Amino acid sequence: MEAFECAFCKKIFPVDPFHTFCPDCQEPLLYKGPKADKKFHRDKDFPLEVMLDFLPLDHVDRNLSLGEGNTPLIKLKKVEKNFQLPSLYAKNETVNPTLSFKDRGTALATQKAISLGIERIGTVSTGNMAISTAAYGARAGLKTYVLIKEGAHPEIIHSTGIYNPVMINVKGDYGELFRRSLSLGKENNIYFTNSVDPFRIEGYKVAAFEIFFQLNQESPDFVFVPVSSGGHLIGLMKAFHELRQHGFITKLPHFIGVQAEGCSPIASAFRQKKPRVERIEKAKTIAKAISNPDPPAGNLLLRMIRNTGGTIMSAPEDKILEAQRILAEIEGIFVQPASATVLVGLLELAEQGKINPEGSIVLVLTGNGMKALGKITQKNTQILQANLADLSSILEFVPSD
Amino acid sequence: MEAFECAFCKKIFPVDPFHTFCPDCQEPLLYKGPKADKKFHRDKDFPLEVMLDFLPLDHVDRNLSLGEGNTPLIKLKKVEKNFQLPSLYAKNETVNPTLSFKDRGTALATQKAISLGIERIGTVSTGNMAISTAAYGARAGLKTYVLIKEGAHPEIIHSTGIYNPVMINVKGDYGELFRRSLSLGKENNIYFTNSVDPFRIEGYKVAAFEIFFQLNQESPDFVFVPVSSGGHLIGLMKAFHELRQHGFITKLPHFIGVQAEGCSPIASAFRQKKPRVERIEKAKTIAKAISNPDPPAGNLLLRMIRNTGGTIMSAPEDKILEAQRILAEIEGIFVQPASATVLVGLLELAEQGKINPEGSIVLVLTGNGMKALGKITQKNTQILQANLADLSSILEFVPSD
Repeated sequence: MEAFECAFCKKIFPVDPFHTFCPDCQEPLLYKGPKADKKFHRDKDFPLEVMLDFLPLDHVDRNLSLGEGNTPLIKLKKVEKNFQLPSLYAKNETVNPTLSFKDRGTALATQKAISLGIERIGTVSTGNMAISTAAYGARAGLKTYVLIKEGAHPEIIHSTGIYNPVMINVKGDYGELFRRSLSLGKENNIYFTNSVDPFRIEGYKVAAFEIFFQLNQESPDFVFVPVSSGGHLIGLMKAFHELRQHGFITKLPHFIGVQAEGCSPIASAFRQKKPRVERIEKAKTIAKAISNPDPPAGNLLLRMIRNTGGTIMSAPEDKILEAQRILAEIEGIFVQPASATVLVGLLELAEQGKINPEGSIVLVLTGNGMKALGKITQKNTQILQANLADLSSILEFVPSD
Repeated sequence: MEAFECAFCKKIFPVDPFHTFCPDCQEPLLYKGPKADKKFHRDKDFPLEVMLDFLPLDHVDRNLSLGEGNTPLIKLKKVEKNFQLPSLYAKNETVNPTLSFKDRGTALATQKAISLGIERIGTVSTGNMAISTAAYGARAGLKTYVLIKEGAHPEIIHSTGIYNPVMINVKGDYGELFRRSLSLGKENNIYFTNSVDPFRIEGYKVAAFEIFFQLNQESPDFVFVPVSSGGHLIGLMKAFHELRQHGFITKLPHFIGVQAEGCSPIASAFRQKKPRVERIEKAKTIAKAISNPDPPAGNLLLRMIRNTGGTIMSAPEDKILEAQRILAEIEGIFVQPASATVLVGLLELAEQGKINPEGSIVLVLTGNGMKALGKITQKNTQILQANLADLSSILEFVPSD
């Protein structure tokens, strides 16, 4: 009934958390569920419970959940107006328990781990994933291994370390570490729920289902998502495909993946119409959270995007912080640079006249700006100095707009 | 129909955002709404819309909302078990848009400001409130003035500055700044929505209503809340009083306010059975977010707590970081030291045998740990170092529990 399937060669494998890639194609496996009628349990509080029929779980153990999901979809009226855009929304995934979308996937992976009797989990990360996996591992009482890429910010190390995982700073190539962790996990009985883990991808679907309900059971016309390994966007696309398959929608959104220019191997392959993604030598981007020079789901994403008329584009580095600032200054939303790429992408497509003026657009904001404060330097922050006695004259003289 | 009321002398004043304290008593005013039948609009997505009948708003403008609220109530099964406690929940207010409970109050205050045609808002803050007010002010397009207490962490300054408010670092006594800001606001037409602003307090009620629904329309037996100025706990208490008044519940929870020992003027007055709170000379606590030596709603809180059989206690400084670590390590929740005080308070009451074993308990977690990373020093964070080649031996040798 259920299986892991290679999305390339269509070969079927048994469901196995220690099995992430097709042994022949070296491409990621995706979870394939039973075809039975599915419905949403909208009377439930926890999103995993609402979406249970669409997920590889028999039940949800609330004691493993951190209350992930139920994130707001809010209108960006001022961005709409300033840039003459159609109906525009932000899906604010930055208010998940550890402040990024990763919690969606980690929540599902830990539910699965406990249901299978697994006692040790792990991940390979440059940031958000480390924090998320350490938190959910702690919550579930799993021994948790976090392999961190050399050079991670102290913020990441401390906010992962607070959950007390086994944390290892690993020197060496990140792509190699990613693949090596999976074989080491198998040997040492550690379930590495890395960025393209099939269960993790299933968890990402939940945000797409929420968007569907928040838009009164309609598809948006465009969904913009930051792209690193490719797993997140694949999960969101898979959810909309399933909504169509089960008759909830008739039309898929246009999916737009956005990479940061300084690390955009998938966007390059897309632009150059290449069949496969070529790893880049060295990532150099301000958007650290999407800095993966060797994206493990790159080829699969490329294929899925081409099959559905989507786009993978890149955001020029010099526009990313500007977009971050726009979201904060006019909409009150502070995101990581990685998340700001989607606004850069949208404005570029709009300028090219590629945005249908009647459509509706969702920007998926993936990580909280508080996690990347290092990018906001003193230079950008204006603060006046006053004594209590002088305050009156300062407030009077500050211009009122 | 609606009015501001002095909770001390019961004098009634017109509703006016430029009026925070009773001119006679110098105590905070509270909003008093019409007595009409009230119901909850549970088909709505936005909590302010669900609770509209109980709030001083005619309607909710979604374009001003950042999607605050709808925060999870999660079971703390492992804390329960480790410390032999009855049913224990955390209301995780740290996943609000700017990562603290302040957003509840700021959301309401900005809705009110816009509905009244106010163009400038302000606040006085040591941290969470600055960020929240700057974000909502930006969202609403209000000119926003943030008066920051001298010595605030750079993290606070940058994460406030990103929203581009007028930010002023003010030297001088904080209590004096608080009161002075209100008169300066009046003179300069800036609505200062400080910690005990009557509208802000109305916004805090929403979290209590959510707890009521998340517990299947029952009251918890205990609600533990960190206490600084007193406004937050007053808001939560007011909501439960209104639930009782309108027939939704029959019994109020026991409200337990927890201060940090190094800044516990209200707890001292409570313990010493004094009629009024005396300001302390100098706060010295690790819990910066609740470090107010001269709490403006202290007297009112003291009276409300005494009238309902609650407690205001203080958490010893040396136990606060330990409680923070417990919440992270066994439940996967990373809070500010200020929020960890509630666990310290609970464990102390439990040790004294004051917790009914059949009851249910809610800890209100107010601010995200990511905002106070400075407290998590390198010393506490263990990280191993490895080359890719050595990783195998490290994973093998790390003990499995």
